[in-house]
Amino acid sequence: MNDDVSSSPESADGPAWLEHVAWDEHGLAPVIAQSVDSQRVLTLAWMNRAALAATVESGFATYWSRSRAKLWRKGETSGNRQRVVEIRLDCDNDALLLRIEQIGGAACHTGRESCFFQIHDDGEWVTRDPVLIDPQDMYGLHE
Amino acid sequence: MNDDVSSSPESADGPAWLEHVAWDEHGLAPVIAQSVDSQRVLTLAWMNRAALAATVESGFATYWSRSRAKLWRKGETSGNRQRVVEIRLDCDNDALLLRIEQIGGAACHTGRESCFFQIHDDGEWVTRDPVLIDPQDMYGLHE
Repeated sequence: MNDDVSSSPESADGPAWLEHVAWDEHGLAPVIAQSVDSQRVLTLAWMNRAALAATVESGFATYWSRSRAKLWRKGETSGNRQRVVEIRLDCDNDALLLRIEQIGGAACHTGRESCFFQIHDDGEWVTRDPVLIDPQDMYGLHE
Repeated sequence: MNDDVSSSPESADGPAWLEHVAWDEHGLAPVIAQSVDSQRVLTLAWMNRAALAATVESGFATYWSRSRAKLWRKGETSGNRQRVVEIRLDCDNDALLLRIEQIGGAACHTGRESCFFQIHDDGEWVTRDPVLIDPQDMYGLHE
């Protein structure tokens, strides 16, 4: 989750479908990205209204980076963008699920397919998922 | 996401694997539950230290209900518990993924398999997922 671009202020009073989302006190909602190819859960990120609107408009996942406080077009640096196939909202309207096609095959900045690569095993977190792409190759050519 | 039981105070200074999680300022982390059978993303809920410890100990998903401010043993009222197959943590340690077996086949209090049943379609949220279990049957016999 390393690439972000272009800032945008929080906006309210969007169209009805956008206001149907129960944005939290910070104007955010958690967003799960799932691969339509492998069915794996790849990332948990956050959106505000502007991020969701940009995602719908562009067809590619755009998140809100809480640490950098700006819009973050996933994959703009690495090239590993997420093409959106379907956007789903949960029963209490406060969490989103993106069904996506992960360009390049790796969603994680470590070069793994999924950010969820630490597995709980008897009181320890172990990593078994392979690194598919050298992170230096993901970011080095563009930065 | 309707059944919760037994309160518990927030505790800190747990074992190292528990403190490895980057709990937020409320002592919480978002938790995705994914079916190992259908691979569908079923729920987005929250855990605190006590909930994660109880999940590991019991082998069944236990969440923290933010609205009721108490531990919530998923399915204790409906019977639709979530047997945990695997617990994963993401690359920045602040989100969890449970790979689970959904007892009864419906994770949502509406009787649908997944809570993510509202699909964005050209500026509207539409529902296409079928109701598998009458919610009155899920809750009526026990309440």
